[in-house]
Amino acid sequence: MAHNIETERWGRFELRTSGPSGGNPYADVRFSAKFRYGNRTVDVSGFYDGDGHYVIRFMPDTTGEWTFETDSNMPELAGIRGSLICTEPSARNHGPVGVDRIHHFAYADGTPFHPFGTTSYVWNHQPEQLQEQTLQSLSKSAFNKIRMCVFPKHYDYNHAEPERFPFEGSLAQGFDFSRFDPSYWRKLESQIEALQGLGIEADLILFHPYDRWGFAKMSAEEDDRYLRYLMARLSSFRNVWWSLANEFDLMHAKTMQDWDRFFRVIQENDANQHLRSIHNWHHPGLHYTSNAHWYDHGKPWVTHVSIQHHDLHFVTDWRKLYRKPIVVDECRYEGDLNHGWGNITGQKMLACFWEGAARGGYVTHGETFLNPENVIWWSHGGKLRGESPARIQFLRSIMEAGPQLGETAVDFEWDAASAGVDGEYYLVYFGESRPGYRILNLPEGVTFTVDLIDTWEMKVTKLPGEYAGTCRVDLPGKAYQALRIQKVKK
Amino acid sequence: MAHNIETERWGRFELRTSGPSGGNPYADVRFSAKFRYGNRTVDVSGFYDGDGHYVIRFMPDTTGEWTFETDSNMPELAGIRGSLICTEPSARNHGPVGVDRIHHFAYADGTPFHPFGTTSYVWNHQPEQLQEQTLQSLSKSAFNKIRMCVFPKHYDYNHAEPERFPFEGSLAQGFDFSRFDPSYWRKLESQIEALQGLGIEADLILFHPYDRWGFAKMSAEEDDRYLRYLMARLSSFRNVWWSLANEFDLMHAKTMQDWDRFFRVIQENDANQHLRSIHNWHHPGLHYTSNAHWYDHGKPWVTHVSIQHHDLHFVTDWRKLYRKPIVVDECRYEGDLNHGWGNITGQKMLACFWEGAARGGYVTHGETFLNPENVIWWSHGGKLRGESPARIQFLRSIMEAGPQLGETAVDFEWDAASAGVDGEYYLVYFGESRPGYRILNLPEGVTFTVDLIDTWEMKVTKLPGEYAGTCRVDLPGKAYQALRIQKVKK
Repeated sequence: MAHNIETERWGRFELRTSGPSGGNPYADVRFSAKFRYGNRTVDVSGFYDGDGHYVIRFMPDTTGEWTFETDSNMPELAGIRGSLICTEPSARNHGPVGVDRIHHFAYADGTPFHPFGTTSYVWNHQPEQLQEQTLQSLSKSAFNKIRMCVFPKHYDYNHAEPERFPFEGSLAQGFDFSRFDPSYWRKLESQIEALQGLGIEADLILFHPYDRWGFAKMSAEEDDRYLRYLMARLSSFRNVWWSLANEFDLMHAKTMQDWDRFFRVIQENDANQHLRSIHNWHHPGLHYTSNAHWYDHGKPWVTHVSIQHHDLHFVTDWRKLYRKPIVVDECRYEGDLNHGWGNITGQKMLACFWEGAARGGYVTHGETFLNPENVIWWSHGGKLRGESPARIQFLRSIMEAGPQLGETAVDFEWDAASAGVDGEYYLVYFGESRPGYRILNLPEGVTFTVDLIDTWEMKVTKLPGEYAGTCRVDLPGKAYQALRIQKVKK
Repeated sequence: MAHNIETERWGRFELRTSGPSGGNPYADVRFSAKFRYGNRTVDVSGFYDGDGHYVIRFMPDTTGEWTFETDSNMPELAGIRGSLICTEPSARNHGPVGVDRIHHFAYADGTPFHPFGTTSYVWNHQPEQLQEQTLQSLSKSAFNKIRMCVFPKHYDYNHAEPERFPFEGSLAQGFDFSRFDPSYWRKLESQIEALQGLGIEADLILFHPYDRWGFAKMSAEEDDRYLRYLMARLSSFRNVWWSLANEFDLMHAKTMQDWDRFFRVIQENDANQHLRSIHNWHHPGLHYTSNAHWYDHGKPWVTHVSIQHHDLHFVTDWRKLYRKPIVVDECRYEGDLNHGWGNITGQKMLACFWEGAARGGYVTHGETFLNPENVIWWSHGGKLRGESPARIQFLRSIMEAGPQLGETAVDFEWDAASAGVDGEYYLVYFGESRPGYRILNLPEGVTFTVDLIDTWEMKVTKLPGEYAGTCRVDLPGKAYQALRIQKVKK
């Protein structure tokens, strides 16, 4: 049927064919394919796309010739064979992002990926024109990851009814959780592709508690079918991450066992093993008297730690505890909202980014300014209004110019966040501390330059001279300063 | 010998007599008295003041006639009898401070005491002129409690040798820990009296680890004798509190059992049962992986909780855990020192004070600005240079105009620190949060006024109208704002 179709590495091969449309094909028809490369076999699930159309999508990860053969419980869908030629990736295609060197991320081609995420939960459920504006804003921003929901959102400032739903039905008439609405999914796919065009990873939130439609209270069978359908449709998009939930611990209809099962269903059905995590509401460790607990990020199917927490100091501990990349996917949002999670200053938002980075972790942005239109970036997208995004851009340029950072043997004292690569590079962030000078205990026998970085003013000043061993740096006694210490290249 | 001498209530009665001066009277002579009022007896220890002088000091707490009779292992010091008339206290004498209503403090006459402490560890060990300047600075400040050490301090910026020591001897020749130096103690007493004249409580630190003289490593017998001597000399001063240590957990020569014993020795020898606590260095709860622990403030002889911690959020938890007054006796210091504990901004220092107050706790100030003379308030006293003291004064005026604050049934949301008296008074502090408006859920059937307080600008603005039940207040979307909500008096 399809032969020697060219697909670039980490691109998407798609096989479309026809089959039965009677009954409920979403529930009743099994359709899959085996893709083969030499002795290797990859199992890929297909999906029903409505109107008698059946689709298999496949993201090849190795250049050369792949063959495939379909399988199905419907004779007309089984035994379809073909081949494809996987070619070199195009210039801006580095493949999907995965974990790199325990605490970091890299694209599949080895290019380091420093996530600078933002949050716009349901920008994809907004009117077309607003979606365009959001993509425009993103294209000019620092952000290369966005947290966004599959399901629409019911919450303050979020009461409009969206145009499309993942399932057939409506709020008034109810939903059939056993039948998907392909038009919703095609739209979501075009949104994910638009993000890919901008170099942005879609951190897709698969469940969330802010719900008036019943999506947060489906049965186990419905949940699992939804996840399998989603994997079949979306796992071939190289820029998706799976966030099992936003604030999972507010979804009172689900148990820890449900979340375990969801992780396994995803593992079994994602041919490309995209990044997987889950995001909390409670803050264990904040209250001595709190019994709250998180989903155990130590479980093997959790690829990286996605945390809601306002205190970036803990990043150092979390790195040691989990030995996975730490992404603080909510540390409160820059804005002036009535709600406490949405009214921090730009200074504080930026300080979270710097502290997280200088502890070897990653931080996600959000913005919540009151405005007469009630179009708020955190949920709807639109325009960025805050003071932090430009400064996050500046931080991103600093981070991408340096190596991936980890714990160092050099102790820069407890009031500074610091990370680096021993003997090569150190990033030291003082935050609200403002020492008038500091004695550094750099390694002996290596010579360093020291840059003073004013993180708010976005200025880098090279301090005079070279530094080695125990040495003194004079500092401006001003908040929000950082040091970048780099080995002199001989 | 002494008859019907008049001593005001909570003043100091002193009996001086002569006795043996041979051998070591500090170690060998027992001298005490029983003071009787009706059927009540108070045991009071005396002390040797050098040159053959023996002294009994007594602070009467009840007006009327008291009689006394001495006891001693030396015949000439035993059986001395007399009486005193305890008169009404003078206008500014409210008695010693004690615990009031579980979480607060009051003077013995019932006047509430809101501690607004500062820290000047060894101002009392500095040259005379500098001591005068410190007292001058204090007299114009908000501070009504000062943390200060009995022993001199050895640490960065603290290398000068003091003039006097609690014991006979010198660094060069060594010290005799069994012989006190009365001239040191008389000076300390005059310093405590000078503070009393300014309405300032002396939070005396009895041990500390910053030592080059051996005071941190005395034997158990020497420690206990030192404590008994100190109680005999100082417990009749109404403005003393006992802080068993600064950073007790850095005194590696002492065990938890030693600290328990010190508390008991003090309990047994302090006829006036002054406030007692102990101050930590480690921060349990900050690191998930930390094993640090505090002295257990729950033990019955600890009157109030004295904590070093930078995060005032915990005050709410500590109140519930300990059911004692919470005093955060170090939350880092305003300044620009090289050390992390001494380089926070005035904004942050003030925010600690407000957050502590608005959670029903108390916070202590300190200041550490680099200067060419190396005279730093935190240790030496001198001049206050920071931006926080004037604003702490403003907070003090707010707190003293209101009631003592506790947990309320009204929830002002988690991003605000709040405390009050239900139905009467609420203090709500937003800190770095900056909501553009807030929905308040005040009690129904009561009418309130709302004052917006700009804590940094020190401005109180009465918001228009009156407020009751669920109501909205418009806020400036600016950091460091507070609300004072007061029942309208009919």
